[in-house]
Amino acid sequence: MTPLKNGSPGRASARAAASLDAGMAPRVVVVGAGFGGLAAVRVLRRHPVTVTWIDRRNHHLFQPLLYQVATAALSPADIATPVREIARKWTNVEVRLGTVLTIDRKQRVVTTSEGEVPYDFLVVATGAETSYFGNKDWARHADGLKGLEDAVAIRRKVLLALERADTAPSDEERRRLLTFVLIGAGPTGIEMAGAIADLAKRMLVPDFRNVKPEMVSVILLEAMDQVLPGFPQDLAAFAHRKLTDMGVDVRTGTMLDRIEEDGVVAGDQRIASRVIIWSAGVKATPVAHWLDAEAGEKGKVTVTSDLSVPGDAQVYVIGDAALALDEEGNPLPGLAAVAKQQGAFVGRRIADLVRGRQERPPFRYRDWGTLATMGRASAVADFGWLHLRGFGAWVVWVVVHIWYLVAFRNRTRVLVNWAWEYFAFRPGARLITGDPHRD
Amino acid sequence: MTPLKNGSPGRASARAAASLDAGMAPRVVVVGAGFGGLAAVRVLRRHPVTVTWIDRRNHHLFQPLLYQVATAALSPADIATPVREIARKWTNVEVRLGTVLTIDRKQRVVTTSEGEVPYDFLVVATGAETSYFGNKDWARHADGLKGLEDAVAIRRKVLLALERADTAPSDEERRRLLTFVLIGAGPTGIEMAGAIADLAKRMLVPDFRNVKPEMVSVILLEAMDQVLPGFPQDLAAFAHRKLTDMGVDVRTGTMLDRIEEDGVVAGDQRIASRVIIWSAGVKATPVAHWLDAEAGEKGKVTVTSDLSVPGDAQVYVIGDAALALDEEGNPLPGLAAVAKQQGAFVGRRIADLVRGRQERPPFRYRDWGTLATMGRASAVADFGWLHLRGFGAWVVWVVVHIWYLVAFRNRTRVLVNWAWEYFAFRPGARLITGDPHRD
Repeated sequence: MTPLKNGSPGRASARAAASLDAGMAPRVVVVGAGFGGLAAVRVLRRHPVTVTWIDRRNHHLFQPLLYQVATAALSPADIATPVREIARKWTNVEVRLGTVLTIDRKQRVVTTSEGEVPYDFLVVATGAETSYFGNKDWARHADGLKGLEDAVAIRRKVLLALERADTAPSDEERRRLLTFVLIGAGPTGIEMAGAIADLAKRMLVPDFRNVKPEMVSVILLEAMDQVLPGFPQDLAAFAHRKLTDMGVDVRTGTMLDRIEEDGVVAGDQRIASRVIIWSAGVKATPVAHWLDAEAGEKGKVTVTSDLSVPGDAQVYVIGDAALALDEEGNPLPGLAAVAKQQGAFVGRRIADLVRGRQERPPFRYRDWGTLATMGRASAVADFGWLHLRGFGAWVVWVVVHIWYLVAFRNRTRVLVNWAWEYFAFRPGARLITGDPHRD
Repeated sequence: MTPLKNGSPGRASARAAASLDAGMAPRVVVVGAGFGGLAAVRVLRRHPVTVTWIDRRNHHLFQPLLYQVATAALSPADIATPVREIARKWTNVEVRLGTVLTIDRKQRVVTTSEGEVPYDFLVVATGAETSYFGNKDWARHADGLKGLEDAVAIRRKVLLALERADTAPSDEERRRLLTFVLIGAGPTGIEMAGAIADLAKRMLVPDFRNVKPEMVSVILLEAMDQVLPGFPQDLAAFAHRKLTDMGVDVRTGTMLDRIEEDGVVAGDQRIASRVIIWSAGVKATPVAHWLDAEAGEKGKVTVTSDLSVPGDAQVYVIGDAALALDEEGNPLPGLAAVAKQQGAFVGRRIADLVRGRQERPPFRYRDWGTLATMGRASAVADFGWLHLRGFGAWVVWVVVHIWYLVAFRNRTRVLVNWAWEYFAFRPGARLITGDPHRD
């Protein structure tokens, strides 16, 4: 049922229809300033609608480089762009800072921490959050990596471990303090593992006189039989080899039993560690709950082929919050590229509906390739028809990441930082902040 | 009594003397990685001593630019340099992260949160902290500005005030949310006031569509009869005029009665505000308590003319932690320049003692001038024989601040950020971080 074209629209959608009939610009609310939301707003700013763009943060975050904040290579501001700065010249777009509390699809109102916002069309692109598969206490011992605060907290732990190891009374104690455990060998896991190995085994060695590279253990645990599950086997094998060369202890096919305050138990072994980083799972933000819609795998909202919520052509869910299927009926992966293409698609779709075009072509994801990097100057790239590995893939990775950074300012900053780190071989944002007495 | 040259040195100094006699390099402990501590270590690294350099932070902070982090112009990493990076090539210097708990002058041992460190010579340069003149509850309502965490907290409050004002239901509410009160019109107070006025009344106006410049009040309260107490009157008058032109409501000769959760009371008036910034007072870190030494004004340790603690030529206190007098018997001001000159002096003094030179020339502060800036492209400079004001003084201010930043990397970063802000007229680090639900 799409209230725009057929009868019985209910009171609220009658109001929506009325606002449309009265010649007022239809109100589109976009929730989320990640890749999906940004792509949708970018399209909608050129159409006769008024957009309210809501996020609980004041910045768009370039998540693919978040691990570089966690490993002291970049500063938070390098990979974040204020949402209001992005939308500064988009006259039909209004920015709102606020957290969604609930969404009333009958009344067509989004309730946020800062008040209510009515909509004629709604795009929900609030992404995913860290999931510990229901083990709530694991969250206390293992850090996820979704926001800037997470990244700064991990940076703090890694740098503090080095500081403490340097003053530790024995080498045994040093080894214990310098054991870093990463759980999950997807792109984030291998990128973090490579970066921590680079940092602790190479870059910072001259600064910590009692720390020897061989005292540092970076252990990467993966339940699947290969790193980078989902990547072609030859690339995964290359990444595995490369990480091993860098001194990362890669353990595939290792099921995690539990995470404790001072270590993890996997299979028949216990690894003592106080720096445990979790990149094994995410779940959707509670969008299904807000919308009172059906949730599928990982809490994602099941959407139709045009990314609308079944039976409600005024509400769209995209990106990591949506369970969308490809032509073969497989779920689309949780990638920035998927979210961006979906955002642009939904923007165009709403523009079409406003213009009175009723065709509903399905969303098709166009896979341009996938990338993952392992530390300094090595990466893998899967373009389907072409597999790249090593330095060439890393150059592609650098170009793509700089290119897709949102603002000119961020591009310059990140490039300057990378050049510095590459040539001076020192991390760029090595700050321990927060209460010095807290762990 | 200087245990190095005469008898009855006690057990611990006998140990120290023994370490000296045995041909071991004397152990110098420097506590604090601010301007004073850094200057002392810079001298000592060239002398036959082993230096242990302790700070509770892992970075040297360029405090004169801290207000620019608080007003979103710079990122924390731009004005901070890791202590270990500074000391990377100083082979006789060992860096320790730790908080001083106490100092035993008999045993000659510094006890830190991370363990004990014995010394033959000690330099304490731990600076000052915010003082609310004994009004503990004021600390909850008014933010001081001494560390990076303070700066990020103020940035958060200022930016959140703008976000909330933009969605506020009435103009009256907007005006209330956009009232910023600054207490104390010393250099930090006027720099903050100017920067907040620039930010909220000019730079960010295009981004907040419901905020008009005239809704923003920046109120600067000062108990003395002029802003910049201590500066020559003509320069203070210029700064006052310039701030007024920028829209800052400068109220000199205004005694503060109290600070409450949602406003301040001064004289017969109450100013409602939720963003209250305190730059009216500092006190020394508890050095007198650690050393069991005599404390003077603001808790500073009274030192002799060579900056040693009376009766103990192996312990020196410098910078904001010390009460040192000039030739006329007036206390030296709490300036970076004083701390730096004292640090270098004490470094040379210890080197002399180690070499067996016993002369004890007094410390003399050489005043090269004082600077303060008011927002964009205006400053005052007092060189004694020459008073500069306006654009010329601002150019001097820029050159001096870039010049004194510690690392090449920080210099480049800050310069690029300033150029960006100057020409693009946008702040460079406009991030709200922390829990979105917390105030």
